[in-house]
Amino acid sequence: MQHFTLDLQHTEGRSRAGVFHTPHGDLLTPAFMPVGTQATVKGIAPRDLTEMGASMILANTYHLYLRPGAELIARQGGLHRFMHWDQPILTDSGGFQVFSLSEMRKIDDEGVTFKSHLDGSMHRLTPEKSIHIQEHLGADVIMCFDECPPPTDREYNVISMARTHAWAERCKQAHTRTDQALFGIVQGGIFRELREQSARFISELDFPGHGIGGLAVGESKENMYATLEWMDAALPEHKPRYLMGVGEPTDLIHGVMRGMDMFDCVLPTRLARHGAAFTHTGRINMRNKLFAEDENPLDAECDCYTCQTFSRAYIRHLLHVSEMLGLYLMSLHNLRFLLTLMREIRAAILEDRFAAYAAAWLLRYKNIGGA
Amino acid sequence: MQHFTLDLQHTEGRSRAGVFHTPHGDLLTPAFMPVGTQATVKGIAPRDLTEMGASMILANTYHLYLRPGAELIARQGGLHRFMHWDQPILTDSGGFQVFSLSEMRKIDDEGVTFKSHLDGSMHRLTPEKSIHIQEHLGADVIMCFDECPPPTDREYNVISMARTHAWAERCKQAHTRTDQALFGIVQGGIFRELREQSARFISELDFPGHGIGGLAVGESKENMYATLEWMDAALPEHKPRYLMGVGEPTDLIHGVMRGMDMFDCVLPTRLARHGAAFTHTGRINMRNKLFAEDENPLDAECDCYTCQTFSRAYIRHLLHVSEMLGLYLMSLHNLRFLLTLMREIRAAILEDRFAAYAAAWLLRYKNIGGA
Repeated sequence: MQHFTLDLQHTEGRSRAGVFHTPHGDLLTPAFMPVGTQATVKGIAPRDLTEMGASMILANTYHLYLRPGAELIARQGGLHRFMHWDQPILTDSGGFQVFSLSEMRKIDDEGVTFKSHLDGSMHRLTPEKSIHIQEHLGADVIMCFDECPPPTDREYNVISMARTHAWAERCKQAHTRTDQALFGIVQGGIFRELREQSARFISELDFPGHGIGGLAVGESKENMYATLEWMDAALPEHKPRYLMGVGEPTDLIHGVMRGMDMFDCVLPTRLARHGAAFTHTGRINMRNKLFAEDENPLDAECDCYTCQTFSRAYIRHLLHVSEMLGLYLMSLHNLRFLLTLMREIRAAILEDRFAAYAAAWLLRYKNIGGA
Repeated sequence: MQHFTLDLQHTEGRSRAGVFHTPHGDLLTPAFMPVGTQATVKGIAPRDLTEMGASMILANTYHLYLRPGAELIARQGGLHRFMHWDQPILTDSGGFQVFSLSEMRKIDDEGVTFKSHLDGSMHRLTPEKSIHIQEHLGADVIMCFDECPPPTDREYNVISMARTHAWAERCKQAHTRTDQALFGIVQGGIFRELREQSARFISELDFPGHGIGGLAVGESKENMYATLEWMDAALPEHKPRYLMGVGEPTDLIHGVMRGMDMFDCVLPTRLARHGAAFTHTGRINMRNKLFAEDENPLDAECDCYTCQTFSRAYIRHLLHVSEMLGLYLMSLHNLRFLLTLMREIRAAILEDRFAAYAAAWLLRYKNIGGA
């Protein structure tokens, strides 16, 4: 059992159930990775993450580079020890956050110069610097520094993709730690020719896994799903495919249907902060007065602490009076909801009944309650 | 074993170790009660409270009357079921909060008219109304509606005390539920004659327990401690004495030294929000850069989840970047710190070594680190 290999246990159509091996344990795929931006999944202690069945979690290089700094984390023994998470961790490259700064950053072929959103101080990120930081953070999987361009601007995607490809080569060159897997990232917007070209180029660099970037950033669902199909056909089968930044339940299902293995998104905790809870029949807005005396759990089928213990009436009260416990209970539920979904998806693939599971699930799920 | 009786197991000098029986279980005294103002101890789930050894907790009538309303909680099966706490609960009368509104309330002999701090709407609280609300909330121990006057104004304390006494009689008259204990409250400011007069009057009404109000509201420590000594002498021995609103570790020790049995305070969670942690050598301010790379736990002697798991460096990072987990971990620790202190105090009394324990504890504890 070699680190950073993906053992595919079973496939059903394009859908895959596998095991990805890392120095901090196995990731059962397909998998949803909770996001711990600043070395913490917002409001959720590691023991709660373990209880809910989280395995690999994500942390953000941009944020940790600014505070508390990668060197400090390295001196504290790395991210695993610092945040007390002994299962796998993945860090992004910092690129996505930096490019999101829009007016506060300037891109050239060497890298990006940007202003900190915190204090306006100037910083520079390059492929080499991103790898250097990620090696200090010490995650099991680290990502190439790429540019995430507007998905529908063809001309810009051509230029940007070339840059992302050159940066991928430099990232590979700069990467020295053998206890970390460096994943390449495919770009190319919504354009089939560019996407396939990018998949070919990145595949040839022989990374142990592939991120699919530049999706879920404003393009249509049709474009997203089509792109995933091109990726499934173009990327090597026996390496994990990580669909970056995707966490809508329906997108998780559609992603798995199109051969994706890994997903991450801030959605469960962000929705919690907005008062929205996942249920099997769709999102509900728990601030709604409708729930003020509702004695049911958030979701009658959920086995999380929140649903096993508290009524909607109590949770609605907590949110209504802005009590921190409300955020905690909602986050716990939303995370467990997605983790349960992925566990069920995986079990269904292993038993050749994922197509039926997905169809039934999607039929039931719709947005209700105004969330 | 009758409800609402206090079995004194052992005394050492004025200090008492006992068991107070309630319909939701026994409270081992002396006891610190965490405050759950809005039907939640801020940020802390019931299972965490149970784990840390909390027994009786407090909730605030004023806040719950405004949101979500006492009738709603009654329809949801009462406070225990609503917030999922199956150990004892105590509610205050709402008086303290209403009198704290200062410009927004008007007192007369019948009751208090006040403006909601939320929306400016007008409300009226009387002894009868307070008891009515507290019966709807359904706590095990409820409190008489009293006035909490400025402690050093003798003239006003004379008038106010007479009102508190008349209201105590009306509260007793209004109280109908036999599964709740109604505690009387002694007032009288820092004036021995008034305090003793109040203790006599309230004792004669034969409540199952006594709150000592109007302390820790700005008077000196000397005045507070002297008042407690008068109370210890004046109140019946075999009923619990509840020192209201006190939670400074040193005050807990001094209170127990002077015959007090029960304490409550928002201090542990409020300090957490301000970044301050209790340690055996005093408070420390965890926002301080001093702790940025400190690998020690908050308190090396503490057995809470926070101290058993995380470094000061990590907690300092969480507070520095305003992550909710920081508040949670700090609250968990501060609460456990006081609960452990009370457990140790009780064990020491039972073994006739509390005087030595208290002296050693107080000698070590001082404020450091700027908190």
